[in-house]
Amino acid sequence: PQGRRALHAASSSFQEVMLTSERYRVQRLPFSHVSDSDVAFFERMMPGRVITNPEELKPFNVDWLKSVRGCSKLMLKPQTTAEVSQALRYCFERNLAVNPQGGNTGLVGGSVPVFDEIILSTVLMNRIISFDKVSGILVCQAGCILEKLNEYLEEQGFIMPLDLGAKGSCHIGGNVATNAGGLRLLRYGSLRGTVLGLEVVLADGSALDCLASLRKDNTGYDLKQLFIGSEGTLGVITAVSVLCPQKPKAVNLAFLGCQSFAKVLETFTTCRAMLGEILSAYEFMDEKCMELVERHLKLSSPVTGSPFYVVIETSGSNSTHDEEKLNSFLEQAMTSGLVTDGTVATDDKKIKASTWFIWIFLIHQMLWSLRERITEALTHDGYVYKYDISLPVGKLYDLVTDTRALLGRSARNVVGYGHLGDGNLHLNITAESYSHSLLDAIEPFVYEWTARYNGSISAEHGLGFKKKQFIQYSKPSEAVFLMQRFKAMLDPKAILNPYKTLPSSF
Amino acid sequence: PQGRRALHAASSSFQEVMLTSERYRVQRLPFSHVSDSDVAFFERMMPGRVITNPEELKPFNVDWLKSVRGCSKLMLKPQTTAEVSQALRYCFERNLAVNPQGGNTGLVGGSVPVFDEIILSTVLMNRIISFDKVSGILVCQAGCILEKLNEYLEEQGFIMPLDLGAKGSCHIGGNVATNAGGLRLLRYGSLRGTVLGLEVVLADGSALDCLASLRKDNTGYDLKQLFIGSEGTLGVITAVSVLCPQKPKAVNLAFLGCQSFAKVLETFTTCRAMLGEILSAYEFMDEKCMELVERHLKLSSPVTGSPFYVVIETSGSNSTHDEEKLNSFLEQAMTSGLVTDGTVATDDKKIKASTWFIWIFLIHQMLWSLRERITEALTHDGYVYKYDISLPVGKLYDLVTDTRALLGRSARNVVGYGHLGDGNLHLNITAESYSHSLLDAIEPFVYEWTARYNGSISAEHGLGFKKKQFIQYSKPSEAVFLMQRFKAMLDPKAILNPYKTLPSSF
Repeated sequence: PQGRRALHAASSSFQEVMLTSERYRVQRLPFSHVSDSDVAFFERMMPGRVITNPEELKPFNVDWLKSVRGCSKLMLKPQTTAEVSQALRYCFERNLAVNPQGGNTGLVGGSVPVFDEIILSTVLMNRIISFDKVSGILVCQAGCILEKLNEYLEEQGFIMPLDLGAKGSCHIGGNVATNAGGLRLLRYGSLRGTVLGLEVVLADGSALDCLASLRKDNTGYDLKQLFIGSEGTLGVITAVSVLCPQKPKAVNLAFLGCQSFAKVLETFTTCRAMLGEILSAYEFMDEKCMELVERHLKLSSPVTGSPFYVVIETSGSNSTHDEEKLNSFLEQAMTSGLVTDGTVATDDKKIKASTWFIWIFLIHQMLWSLRERITEALTHDGYVYKYDISLPVGKLYDLVTDTRALLGRSARNVVGYGHLGDGNLHLNITAESYSHSLLDAIEPFVYEWTARYNGSISAEHGLGFKKKQFIQYSKPSEAVFLMQRFKAMLDPKAILNPYKTLPSSF
Repeated sequence: PQGRRALHAASSSFQEVMLTSERYRVQRLPFSHVSDSDVAFFERMMPGRVITNPEELKPFNVDWLKSVRGCSKLMLKPQTTAEVSQALRYCFERNLAVNPQGGNTGLVGGSVPVFDEIILSTVLMNRIISFDKVSGILVCQAGCILEKLNEYLEEQGFIMPLDLGAKGSCHIGGNVATNAGGLRLLRYGSLRGTVLGLEVVLADGSALDCLASLRKDNTGYDLKQLFIGSEGTLGVITAVSVLCPQKPKAVNLAFLGCQSFAKVLETFTTCRAMLGEILSAYEFMDEKCMELVERHLKLSSPVTGSPFYVVIETSGSNSTHDEEKLNSFLEQAMTSGLVTDGTVATDDKKIKASTWFIWIFLIHQMLWSLRERITEALTHDGYVYKYDISLPVGKLYDLVTDTRALLGRSARNVVGYGHLGDGNLHLNITAESYSHSLLDAIEPFVYEWTARYNGSISAEHGLGFKKKQFIQYSKPSEAVFLMQRFKAMLDPKAILNPYKTLPSSF
């Protein structure tokens, strides 16, 4: 529900966003322009599912952050792979550019057109094809909403291997196309391991069926991997096959306060050792994040007065065992001074005395909200400069401190939070409005800092439109060159999601 | 130790194997022949690490199963990536074919030359580059032996995310190049998730550095995935970065007898639900396997008289909790008649009474041997026809029954075992010696049977030389065609591991 609510909140305060092409001074490539006969062709192919009304198109031309805007005049809503195939074959022949779109929740401008690309939406491709209860393998169309899939699976004793703030809106196809990370990666690993098969339509309209439902298959090269994380630039994902874990019987949550980032790290090492296989998330946020969530969303935290907060989730098959593990960890963390304050919530119990400093509530959802809704709170704080960085965990917070020192009063807030267990920092900077000079102060500073410690300038958000020129901070030129050759081979006219992922000149 | 012992046992009974080219009637492609001046060039580049003595070359020309034999006249043993790069650049210019080789433990003839390809061995590339105890990320050269890496990690409280019978000989580079599965896949997932980075030298000698040590990195296409499982046909892996799990504090093993395959399946479902996150392996073997292990290796099982046996391993962070979970599962399995006999071994305790039917020994290693050494026992039973199949678990054993019925007395033994938890069956057929007519009876029967249930004709062994012509049973022609385009792009002269993985004509 958070995801949907968040999206709705953002959409309802709709405002004018400068055209991407104007702000970033990019040039339109010589694709054809959509003609009346093109529209007529699509109307015949999928009657009633061709959108040309500018008002109706507006929310699909602007990204969720309202940071970039395209001016597409046409959106298609296919229902089947055959329709996607037909549409792309036509676009390929006519040299029409195409912007594949899922739930449009991306954060790097990858999901909206830059100019007048045709929006190819997966919104009507939301059919569950099969689910096998013995193997836990789900096969579904690309437009299924993540949260709906999770609800469907929970009824059968399973869950999706990924979870993220945008779950109420994002499509599984978009998740796979962007190799989404999120909150469960620490436990269930990345989509590169859990996605077992894909069906993809290539730029020329040909369909590639690699929709295997097998846990192991070593017959030739693993083609599907190339499409995972390619942000719609190599093909359009139309169906996915995913290995789903069993629904844990017991879920516990601890929300703790730490007096320094060093203690956040030490707490992580301690909890990984003591919670072992039941640790399913280790998230952190600084006090600035907490302040913004309280101010803009009126959420209140049961734990206050610390410079850092961590959210620890355990998921396991035996609630007694899990609580025992969690309690001995918490006792250790408290007595050794790693943690100064904390709240624990369990899924299935109302009240259970544990130690004098821990209150137990049925507030699982509320505690997660404090962490999950930071992104949303930030959008209420002004224009947001977003950075999604991978770094060795020991260095993670230094980037926030250094950026804060560098920017001083020119930024409204500089905050840090993220998936500490995965070495993933979300660095966010807010200001009253967008300004070139502030951007110049931040970039390339943040990228250079990250490159110095061999980090990644995009841990999970992808490169999309806004980050593609910075790929060289994380990838050697030989690798980028090879990517460009793959792109040229699979999409020789470069009609798929142009201006995204790979740098335009290199 | 098993792996090494097994390899030694096989090598010591060295016998003449027919040349691959004669048995399979393949034609040599028009590569150059190694000349004296080539040898002189390599001698200057890596003095003392160039092997031309035919006797010394013999074991590297024959695969571990002694089923295929090449006639390479030259083996190179580079120590550094720069040397691999230099060697390949030279071979590319001279149009000399190259067979990259790790521990030579592959089972599909992928690791030995077919004709006179130069053997490029990673045997001297066995340096550990770095290990980070906070993140658990290991970076090492491709020639490190799996078991040695595991021993190194265990000292620091970690383990490798994969384990397999050949661990005493196989190289991590070979593991990655073949996307090895093995015994821990059920718990830690495939190498596609745990391998974080690769350094690869391409056919023309250019090095591709994607050796990131980050858990998350979404900057562009994930090029390394293309090399995982490509069996040395797209590039030579020279270094790997792997995410390693913590060493579990408690490991328990149960060896159980079941009266039917249906009960093996039901036991799996029950144990997955009751053991949850601590289940780390679920292996099965039929009574024929047990017979062969007892006869040829003189191992004896504490559990006898059942048509099927399963090995269940748990790995966890709390021995009391884990034993409680295991005991309640075993009680449930026994009282409901799923299991008729069993033995349990724990890592850290000598004797602990549990229920009347379970004896507890310090025989962890011995119990695993019964399962791990089946491959070795089979080699003592005659010529082995090996099939490594992925199927929906419910169908898994029907293939063994049907094959046994089909072959009747023309086979010595038809056995089934494997990683049931991953839907992976190892179907093995033994006979006194190799015969065309028996092969014709087995193939394409096994492949057609597998294709009928949308299985994979190679779950984890790869295609190598012996299975490449059967790829179409598991992959559509569009996919194979695309693979061939990738091969042509990355290795335009096709010098890397020729005659392997992809079908020669299609």
